[in-house]
Amino acid sequence: MKEQDIVNLLRHSRHDWLNKIQLIKGYLSFGKLERVNEIIEEIVRQSENESKLSNLPLPQFSALLLTYNWNTNPVVLSYEVLGTGKAINVDDVVFTKWLSQFLQKLNASVSTIDEHQLFLQIILDEEQLRLAVRFNGILVHTESILDFLNKQMAGIYLSAPTISKEEIDFELHF
Amino acid sequence: MKEQDIVNLLRHSRHDWLNKIQLIKGYLSFGKLERVNEIIEEIVRQSENESKLSNLPLPQFSALLLTYNWNTNPVVLSYEVLGTGKAINVDDVVFTKWLSQFLQKLNASVSTIDEHQLFLQIILDEEQLRLAVRFNGILVHTESILDFLNKQMAGIYLSAPTISKEEIDFELHF
Repeated sequence: MKEQDIVNLLRHSRHDWLNKIQLIKGYLSFGKLERVNEIIEEIVRQSENESKLSNLPLPQFSALLLTYNWNTNPVVLSYEVLGTGKAINVDDVVFTKWLSQFLQKLNASVSTIDEHQLFLQIILDEEQLRLAVRFNGILVHTESILDFLNKQMAGIYLSAPTISKEEIDFELHF
Repeated sequence: MKEQDIVNLLRHSRHDWLNKIQLIKGYLSFGKLERVNEIIEEIVRQSENESKLSNLPLPQFSALLLTYNWNTNPVVLSYEVLGTGKAINVDDVVFTKWLSQFLQKLNASVSTIDEHQLFLQIILDEEQLRLAVRFNGILVHTESILDFLNKQMAGIYLSAPTISKEEIDFELHF
């Protein structure tokens, strides 16, 4: 790993964590201790998701999710990891390729003035992985997203997506 | 950068930050708000040091200091960055080589049962950098450290070190 890459990566991570610390500091200064506790619970929960993700044998997929929001994209990503499976039958390369193409397509299909959220549920069933995908935002090109989702990719199976101008909803497995 | 390296690096960083959050959570649960505020101040100060370090044109030196404590070494490292210089006349490669040799020598020269601290003051004077080095711990091989410090390295100038079984103190510049 190049040293400048290490420094840059840790800069992004530090920036995220300092935002959380500042949030705690802010509510603390107003005496809102209950809110502080909620924020801490949320931070711990998020970190547990990140840890679970990092322990899967899916380095490309994990690295993509862990760093995606550091490139200012129109669509903000969040996720949670459910289940206790090990995802050993998942092809990291194929899966990550599909996801990064989907993200690219989605970012190119949303309005530039609104806020957009993509929420992923990573469900670990035994040796498999299911991905529940939910988008909330404003789409300007529903057609191109639908085309992309209807395209087959070897080894990836999609449920029929629900899609409107404000919402996309589907599930994916291997 | 390899994806597994990214995942590992962020795992270390997450671990450090979660320790800080747990510390805040602990004092919060005991109602020790003043202590919580002190901890937050200390976290912010530490992060400012890391940011300053990361912004220097010294990626090798920065990466070494930012990641050193993640390899469980007998000697624990801390540092602060003083001054507003840009360190543009510092040779990153030569400087980092010297420092990592010194750390290696020091880790091999301390007792295995005690705690040891190395504190670096990185002083940014205009285009130069001075390093004030202070060790507190228990040395079992003072001779080999002294030999190392007396050896010349091109481009690096050391003040005569104060050295005892419990302490090392010297300054270094370029």
